[in-house]
Amino acid sequence: SASPSSLKIFLTSHHILNPTVLLALILLGLLTAVVSFFMDLAIQELQYLRLFFIQTSSEILNMGIWIIFCIVLCELAVFITSYLSKDAEGSGIPEMKAILSGVKLRNFMSYKTFFAKIIGVVFAIGGGLSIGREGPFVHISGIIATHISKIPIFSHIHSNLTLKNQFLAAAVAAGIASVFECPIGGVLYSIEVTSTYYIVSNMWRAAFCSIWCAIGIIWLREIGQMKVINSTDFPDVGLDLEIFSFIILGCLCGLLGALFINITSRLISLKEQNIYPMLYGRYRYTLLICIICAVVTFLTNYMRLNDMAVINDMFHSTFSEHGWDDYNLPFALLVFGICKFLLTSLSLSCHIPAGVLYPLLAAGAVFGRLFQQLASLVFTSDRHGVYAAVGAASLVSATTHTISVAVIVFEFTGQIHYFLPMIVSVLIAYTVSSSLTLSIYDAFLEIKG
Amino acid sequence: SASPSSLKIFLTSHHILNPTVLLALILLGLLTAVVSFFMDLAIQELQYLRLFFIQTSSEILNMGIWIIFCIVLCELAVFITSYLSKDAEGSGIPEMKAILSGVKLRNFMSYKTFFAKIIGVVFAIGGGLSIGREGPFVHISGIIATHISKIPIFSHIHSNLTLKNQFLAAAVAAGIASVFECPIGGVLYSIEVTSTYYIVSNMWRAAFCSIWCAIGIIWLREIGQMKVINSTDFPDVGLDLEIFSFIILGCLCGLLGALFINITSRLISLKEQNIYPMLYGRYRYTLLICIICAVVTFLTNYMRLNDMAVINDMFHSTFSEHGWDDYNLPFALLVFGICKFLLTSLSLSCHIPAGVLYPLLAAGAVFGRLFQQLASLVFTSDRHGVYAAVGAASLVSATTHTISVAVIVFEFTGQIHYFLPMIVSVLIAYTVSSSLTLSIYDAFLEIKG
Repeated sequence: SASPSSLKIFLTSHHILNPTVLLALILLGLLTAVVSFFMDLAIQELQYLRLFFIQTSSEILNMGIWIIFCIVLCELAVFITSYLSKDAEGSGIPEMKAILSGVKLRNFMSYKTFFAKIIGVVFAIGGGLSIGREGPFVHISGIIATHISKIPIFSHIHSNLTLKNQFLAAAVAAGIASVFECPIGGVLYSIEVTSTYYIVSNMWRAAFCSIWCAIGIIWLREIGQMKVINSTDFPDVGLDLEIFSFIILGCLCGLLGALFINITSRLISLKEQNIYPMLYGRYRYTLLICIICAVVTFLTNYMRLNDMAVINDMFHSTFSEHGWDDYNLPFALLVFGICKFLLTSLSLSCHIPAGVLYPLLAAGAVFGRLFQQLASLVFTSDRHGVYAAVGAASLVSATTHTISVAVIVFEFTGQIHYFLPMIVSVLIAYTVSSSLTLSIYDAFLEIKG
Repeated sequence: SASPSSLKIFLTSHHILNPTVLLALILLGLLTAVVSFFMDLAIQELQYLRLFFIQTSSEILNMGIWIIFCIVLCELAVFITSYLSKDAEGSGIPEMKAILSGVKLRNFMSYKTFFAKIIGVVFAIGGGLSIGREGPFVHISGIIATHISKIPIFSHIHSNLTLKNQFLAAAVAAGIASVFECPIGGVLYSIEVTSTYYIVSNMWRAAFCSIWCAIGIIWLREIGQMKVINSTDFPDVGLDLEIFSFIILGCLCGLLGALFINITSRLISLKEQNIYPMLYGRYRYTLLICIICAVVTFLTNYMRLNDMAVINDMFHSTFSEHGWDDYNLPFALLVFGICKFLLTSLSLSCHIPAGVLYPLLAAGAVFGRLFQQLASLVFTSDRHGVYAAVGAASLVSATTHTISVAVIVFEFTGQIHYFLPMIVSVLIAYTVSSSLTLSIYDAFLEIKG
């Protein structure tokens, strides 16, 4: 009775092995890696440059330079984005979801949007706004995929709508994978954020593309000596009473995630309603946000760190550098958490390309570490980093309504044996948040209409 | 434009939070864990008993006892299976796939099948056949799910076909998770082997059920002091030339997997054609296979080990116990690999409930370790265990045509930072094998028609 279906699967799996499709996937993976690497490099150089400029003897002068530097870069980001292509604004993940479910968006995949998105996100992050680059990068890899499929030898991909969509879905996976070096998490995350129904045989394609992308980015980062992610060495985590502590962490992250979606949506809605016209010009609004971000990041050492450095710090059991211990630790964590939370929300409401994953991972990691300070009153284990990892994944899970972010964090840390507290907390955060609100991507789609 | 779809997602996600559905999922997860634990315990006791009986001074007497013990248990397995329910024969995964795609199979979910499957698989493994219990256990958890959904307070699950199927899919995930303590891998593997199209919002349900199941089984095993899986401590694996070694390993595993499917299918087809009626009676055939298995396992110490012990041995960098080093190591590995491969193929053709994952993981781990002995002539790294883990996942990937088995092995080992060689090798094995043959589940479905 099942022969026709197995025959179909058989043919489908042979279809996968079409050499031009394989070649297209390899090309997509590697190109995505190259673009991602040079974006990273540009952001890093801008961040170095910013620190280089503030070496004068006067703190006030330094602060002035810092703020002006940020303003210039952010306004440039807004200008270039709006000049080249307004489609480049925002995350890109909600739009990719719309495209993959069949909505046609004009200009969304143009070269202009490509450059607008890259330059916009590089300048905005370089200018100190608290945004991530994984959402925009999903859009960028989608554009790369579209243009690869237009190359004559790959024309059968472009002409076959199913295959074209699967190729785009692979691009989404590669986009995530290239940012976090997480091919498996990338595939799963891309499924969760872009699909309602998923064709399982397509998972192969997405994984194939992601792994080429991961190989490319790991190799490039090794050459460029850009060490992004440190493996962790968490102690063994079994099943014990401390699981209750992670349950509470999951609940809190779920509430925080819902709060974050709420605040951000309101900020954007307020802007759309245009109540205070003086405030809400494209450039004026960014100016305001940019100054807030610049002042806050200048005043505290640890707010100047990029998100990845914060995540690495939090995931380790001792704070080796970056001066976290110079202050009262819980106080520093609290300040950072609140600032990061609010600055990210503000930054997302600007007219720039912006992702949410990176800053929220950082905020979640800090929050998890802060929670650990409380939990250590009851449980005296040495699981400092585990709390940070679980907190990071839970906050993102609550905000984006995904479970697979847990896998991204597993790939981050190189360990998976703490899956029990991780999955428990992530599922609870997901449940709490999804019973309160839409995911941030769907909320954005709803505001945009 | 996207509002209706986001509204739909919103409603769906609220539907998830229906408390009776949650309760049903928790119940399913915990019951699955309890049944799984007691099956484990029964198998373990039978294996102890078998060793207990062969403590006489005469080796020949010992061998006789060993063979008779095996024959009695295996024939009992065949008898009970055929007496209670012939539906209990085989893996169960192909049939679950058929049911989830809408095929109706009578009696497949009955209490009789439940007991036939449990007793059959326990006696067959206890009787020394080289089979796994994860396939049958997926069927068992499916039966548990069906009967839970018939409880009056959960009747809305039973009456809603979509919800019922999603509940069954969660049972498949929990079934895998309970065997390998791998909630994430369980969810992904269940998607790959049972679905062609997957409703992404359902992933939540499956993960929720799996985590309860994992908590249950970990807790029970801790109480029962049944330590199943040892975490590994592989060294850091980056991107270097050794990746080519893993590429070759992937190719070889792909070929081996295709060969395995081919041999097993032919054995079953031969049996169905009934050319030698003298050989192919239900009991006579099992008798033959059982004697072969018993003789082989008696003659070599390491063939007596259960699959999990072999996997643990292979994954570690030094062989601490079980006498692998008593012999010439490469020779021991080669003998084990070939025997395991053939015995598993033979065992699967018997009229008993049987899974493929466990023995193939063991065979793949041994094969990976054997390959490492060769590779060490070129690459002198200390990645002994990594080869075993990659080999295990690749061989299973080639046989079952799944990628997510990589995640199962990651959860096994507690580490994920060797994802690069892992995914490369698994994808290659998958590609090679799927270009040559159907997956073993689809091959079984085709033979059964």
